[in-house]
Amino acid sequence: MYKIIPLEGGLSAVPGFYCDGVNVGMRTSPANSGITDLDGDVAFIRSDVLCNVSAVFTSNRFQAAPIQHFKRYAHGFQTNFILINAKNANAMTGEKGIEDIETILSALPKKVGAVNPIMSSTGVIGNRLPVQKITSAFDRFDYQAKNSDAAARAIMTTDTFKKELAYKIVLKDGESFRIAGICKGAGMIDPAMATLLSFIVTDAAVPKADMDALLLEATDDSFNRISVDGDTSTNDTALLLANGTNNVYDKAAFNAALKQLMFEMAMMVLRDGEGATKVVAFEVTGAQDDKEARTAATALSNSLLVKTALFGEDPNWGRIASTIGAAGIACDDERLTIHYDDLLIYSSQQRELDARREKAAYGIMKQARFTVTCDLGMGEGAYTAYGCDLSYDYVKINAEYRT
Amino acid sequence: MYKIIPLEGGLSAVPGFYCDGVNVGMRTSPANSGITDLDGDVAFIRSDVLCNVSAVFTSNRFQAAPIQHFKRYAHGFQTNFILINAKNANAMTGEKGIEDIETILSALPKKVGAVNPIMSSTGVIGNRLPVQKITSAFDRFDYQAKNSDAAARAIMTTDTFKKELAYKIVLKDGESFRIAGICKGAGMIDPAMATLLSFIVTDAAVPKADMDALLLEATDDSFNRISVDGDTSTNDTALLLANGTNNVYDKAAFNAALKQLMFEMAMMVLRDGEGATKVVAFEVTGAQDDKEARTAATALSNSLLVKTALFGEDPNWGRIASTIGAAGIACDDERLTIHYDDLLIYSSQQRELDARREKAAYGIMKQARFTVTCDLGMGEGAYTAYGCDLSYDYVKINAEYRT
Repeated sequence: MYKIIPLEGGLSAVPGFYCDGVNVGMRTSPANSGITDLDGDVAFIRSDVLCNVSAVFTSNRFQAAPIQHFKRYAHGFQTNFILINAKNANAMTGEKGIEDIETILSALPKKVGAVNPIMSSTGVIGNRLPVQKITSAFDRFDYQAKNSDAAARAIMTTDTFKKELAYKIVLKDGESFRIAGICKGAGMIDPAMATLLSFIVTDAAVPKADMDALLLEATDDSFNRISVDGDTSTNDTALLLANGTNNVYDKAAFNAALKQLMFEMAMMVLRDGEGATKVVAFEVTGAQDDKEARTAATALSNSLLVKTALFGEDPNWGRIASTIGAAGIACDDERLTIHYDDLLIYSSQQRELDARREKAAYGIMKQARFTVTCDLGMGEGAYTAYGCDLSYDYVKINAEYRT
Repeated sequence: MYKIIPLEGGLSAVPGFYCDGVNVGMRTSPANSGITDLDGDVAFIRSDVLCNVSAVFTSNRFQAAPIQHFKRYAHGFQTNFILINAKNANAMTGEKGIEDIETILSALPKKVGAVNPIMSSTGVIGNRLPVQKITSAFDRFDYQAKNSDAAARAIMTTDTFKKELAYKIVLKDGESFRIAGICKGAGMIDPAMATLLSFIVTDAAVPKADMDALLLEATDDSFNRISVDGDTSTNDTALLLANGTNNVYDKAAFNAALKQLMFEMAMMVLRDGEGATKVVAFEVTGAQDDKEARTAATALSNSLLVKTALFGEDPNWGRIASTIGAAGIACDDERLTIHYDDLLIYSSQQRELDARREKAAYGIMKQARFTVTCDLGMGEGAYTAYGCDLSYDYVKINAEYRT
């Protein structure tokens, strides 16, 4: 048994980790309502001891330079330093993009003692990093700071609020460890905005042998289940650093805490989905297997017609059913049932929505968060994906990004 | 050698075919700028002799009742009558939906002499057809009319203009035949709007043995290459009727004419794509095979980020490249090149867009129609897909459809 207790302070809540963010002039104006020009555009996360590190990267075939750079380290390497910048993704920049990273990281002050430093970038694709601007941060960082707020704000792009979380996990013997994360992303959004980055730190003594598998599993249950617009960027990154300083480790508890942290961060991203007004869970059950359930649930969370119906608060179950049918999986309208929360919306016995149920459906759809459950009635396969609605503001944000 | 000459008059241009459209009160208000309440909601197409018939239907697993009804006829059946209605898709209506079709078609006046009549529907999913309203059209139709305009307008839903085309094909010996079509669709749009229907008639003596394959091939080169929002409805239908009355047939000429007719109808649908302001051809070359090229081209035409960048007239090639990378096909940023029309936008030698090329790119993107060519530099595979931009109006049309 264990308890997961939310803490304030984001990354600052975990002993042994330090972070800060400064503005070096890449962010010259407020990008949106959540960012002021006082916010930074370069951040670091530092540990005072070497950490085990695991990473999950984008499945995009064009991986950005920082990802290629990371992969040049030997498997199982340890590190104590991550440098992050916004406004420039350092993607599609070729070998020069990797050389720029090496130039920047080699300019880190000796006193920092960076070992195998990692760089992570987010922003527009195709431009070389402004090396001088970024290294100008090195004299201005406070390397002893525990300033999670500044770091979380420095990595935002179209985000309208900073995203940080921290938990204390208390085991049954009273021992405890901590885990915290910051992330950025307002949707599995644009390469040009470089989408989703997340950085998670813990003082638990997580063995490297467990870390990779647990991070992959938690990613699959969180960031891989959300969709704002179905796109996968060149830069998507989830990094986990474990400093092991408190010598505590309980695999089940760590697994649960990591999953909860990443799931809640994913929900923050969806809530901040570009222009989104509501978050919807698409739960598909009764599929022939989990893979088919995943295909159907993901199709629902990606469908423009479903997303615009959600924005219009239109209980148009035809769009839900048709999207499942279009996904090409085995289904049958005689066996299908659709619920919004607990309200039956469709079954072969009740194909037409009467006035009472239509009114109840409107009530459910006005909520900021609700569940659409589709039971295919075929087998035991199940999967839940999470999506948001598509509003005018999505078009505005993405049409006007660079102008 | 043959010549394809455009004609006025749509379906009315083909001898032996008759059509009309009337309003029976299902369409009670103008649906949009292209439809007035004077337009019909029920139409017919009739031939004075029995016709060979071929059909291509939606790949959606939930096929609407009219498609299930059609499939109950023996393969190779002939017909002389199609009845079409708007405002109600007769989809997800179960066996009752098919019974409604049988009730309606059996009420056709004896004098019409309908043999194996076909029904086709478009509109909202999940409601039973208003049988009385639809059959009330039967006393009001002019069965001798050649009123293509009324038929083309009666099948519109979110369309802002009617879609009809006709060609005369002159063979080298001076003989000729005709082909014409009407269609509806403003995108591979909503099940609830029942998306794409097309009806093509010809007086050429097309053997049934050729018809199925030629219609399938022409569909693959036209309607299957366009995307407004990537959705596939429960009702998508392309029907081809050949009355053979002029005894002329030249396979190559007929093939070319059918392809041109369907391609131009598909471009009309894209131009009318909900809220679209421009049509873009996504040409992918240099893929390992045609299948990979198709995957990449289709991903581009479906990407929300590409579509919003088109609307914003933002020459953001990062979104193009990243979408190809996200499609999971073999590609390499050292080999990739991207052109907008003839302008080089990206190559590994010219990764950054200088001011001159950026300005030229803006000029190209302001056009109503242009081509994005991506050469993957891997092999000989090629495919072209066609898409449109995504504007505020798309969201408006789809959020407010039923309200």
